[in-house]
Amino acid sequence: MKEINIIGMGMSEKTLTAEALELIIEADILIGAKRLINEFSHMNKPSFNAYLSNDILEIIEETDAEKIAILVSGDVGFYSAAEKLVDVLKDYNPNLISGISSVSYFFAKCSLPWKDANLISCHGLDTNIVSSVRRNRFTFALTGKNIPELQKELVKYGFGDLKVWVGENLGSDEESIQESTISELAGNQFSSLTVLIIENPDFDSRIRTGIPDEEFIRGKVPMTKSEVRAVCLSKLSINPDDVAYDIGCGTGSVTIEMAFSAYDGKVYAFDKNEEAIELLKQNCQKFHLDNVEAICGL
Amino acid sequence: MKEINIIGMGMSEKTLTAEALELIIEADILIGAKRLINEFSHMNKPSFNAYLSNDILEIIEETDAEKIAILVSGDVGFYSAAEKLVDVLKDYNPNLISGISSVSYFFAKCSLPWKDANLISCHGLDTNIVSSVRRNRFTFALTGKNIPELQKELVKYGFGDLKVWVGENLGSDEESIQESTISELAGNQFSSLTVLIIENPDFDSRIRTGIPDEEFIRGKVPMTKSEVRAVCLSKLSINPDDVAYDIGCGTGSVTIEMAFSAYDGKVYAFDKNEEAIELLKQNCQKFHLDNVEAICGL
Repeated sequence: MKEINIIGMGMSEKTLTAEALELIIEADILIGAKRLINEFSHMNKPSFNAYLSNDILEIIEETDAEKIAILVSGDVGFYSAAEKLVDVLKDYNPNLISGISSVSYFFAKCSLPWKDANLISCHGLDTNIVSSVRRNRFTFALTGKNIPELQKELVKYGFGDLKVWVGENLGSDEESIQESTISELAGNQFSSLTVLIIENPDFDSRIRTGIPDEEFIRGKVPMTKSEVRAVCLSKLSINPDDVAYDIGCGTGSVTIEMAFSAYDGKVYAFDKNEEAIELLKQNCQKFHLDNVEAICGL
Repeated sequence: MKEINIIGMGMSEKTLTAEALELIIEADILIGAKRLINEFSHMNKPSFNAYLSNDILEIIEETDAEKIAILVSGDVGFYSAAEKLVDVLKDYNPNLISGISSVSYFFAKCSLPWKDANLISCHGLDTNIVSSVRRNRFTFALTGKNIPELQKELVKYGFGDLKVWVGENLGSDEESIQESTISELAGNQFSSLTVLIIENPDFDSRIRTGIPDEEFIRGKVPMTKSEVRAVCLSKLSINPDDVAYDIGCGTGSVTIEMAFSAYDGKVYAFDKNEEAIELLKQNCQKFHLDNVEAICGL
């Protein structure tokens, strides 16, 4: 039976654990992304440049090697390639070897604890980063080249003054860590391997329903009253990751409360009245809700 | 200026990082709990057995050593002594060096990802472990000798059938990992260094208000109606970590909804009617709410 170790390589050779190094030394072959296997080229082991699960499975099926080390970056349990590998390689019953994650590494560099942080990945298209920042003291975000968009989004929804730590190319010789406000990030360029920590000392995790009418920015468009909203929202019983629709949303006071409930989801709101849609957009900014798509039309 | 490194030692010598080892080798003195400094007794460095922040500060103030390594277990950012040390030693501007946390280590051993897990410590008296299990697919809990109490609590509130992974003395020669259901843990003894992962595939993160009347276990005691509850709860606007009081709670239908909102806090409910208090207790079990103290009396 082949022995397969999926090894978290941490942030660099410096953060490699003794156990990981030992298993690499004992391995007959190494498999992983080029950047990772190259670190051990001096060992002259047969090495395979592969990072897609099915490619790795194929290499394992074809090799005669008994001890196989698959190298993955960071830790094996945090947005890691290991998650899919465990599934694809389940017949081989692979071992997972933990490594230093970007979470652990970056919080240490910033002298902050991570135990209460909300951890998100902004590599997907529709991450509710504003929701996370509204609801949590610390948000840790994996980002790519999309920081300019995230920065604009956070400023638009009222979080421009918050403190942010930006970590680029962590663990490498080009490592850079800067502290600033979110507004100050405007116009900067960032590496494709960048992580953020955002601190919101005034975080608020409430799911608000029946918000007092006077808290809304209002125009001439009629608005559903506070108590009616509270009852409607209770009947809807929305899950955090739900997608909800508000057809004929008016000023969007119900939309706003749906968006509080669906903080990991999304609300689509429609109205033919342009003024209503405009008011809804203003209220989304006021209440720090980025998970609403307001559409003017029939 | 003294150079102070607060070093996360991971789960054992095997999980020590290359960086941590290098800083320990370079250090003039070592400070830490006996178990940790003993690992390096072969280096014959002056070593100080201390783990309280103020004791460590005193040692640092009195020593002539320039390079000081403070050893802490696990990672520096997860329920770590490092958190207080950073504050007490702030004039020395210490560096934090990340280590393998029990979270990263144990999830890897169980072949699970930890990115979406809720992380709690049950070392305090009043941890809402039932709330965490109700609201999250995975709960990771640091526990001590209190597993028998936690086990009973979880069974009482309807989670006896859930899957649990129990890790004792992780990283040591006495490491033990077992998989079972929560019910099956009854009667077992556990080490004082034990962690749990609990999986709830039917987790539900909703903050419920205006729960349909028929969902409650009811007796002859009058009950506040669904719509009235929804409006009351919206006016209360309870924070997750609030402590709330329900005086004259009746069957406790409002208490139940307060407990959903205060999932990281607590609700004290009072009624002179014994039957009412009994019904409230039954409903707390039905809705998986362990954060209610129901008191019969005037």
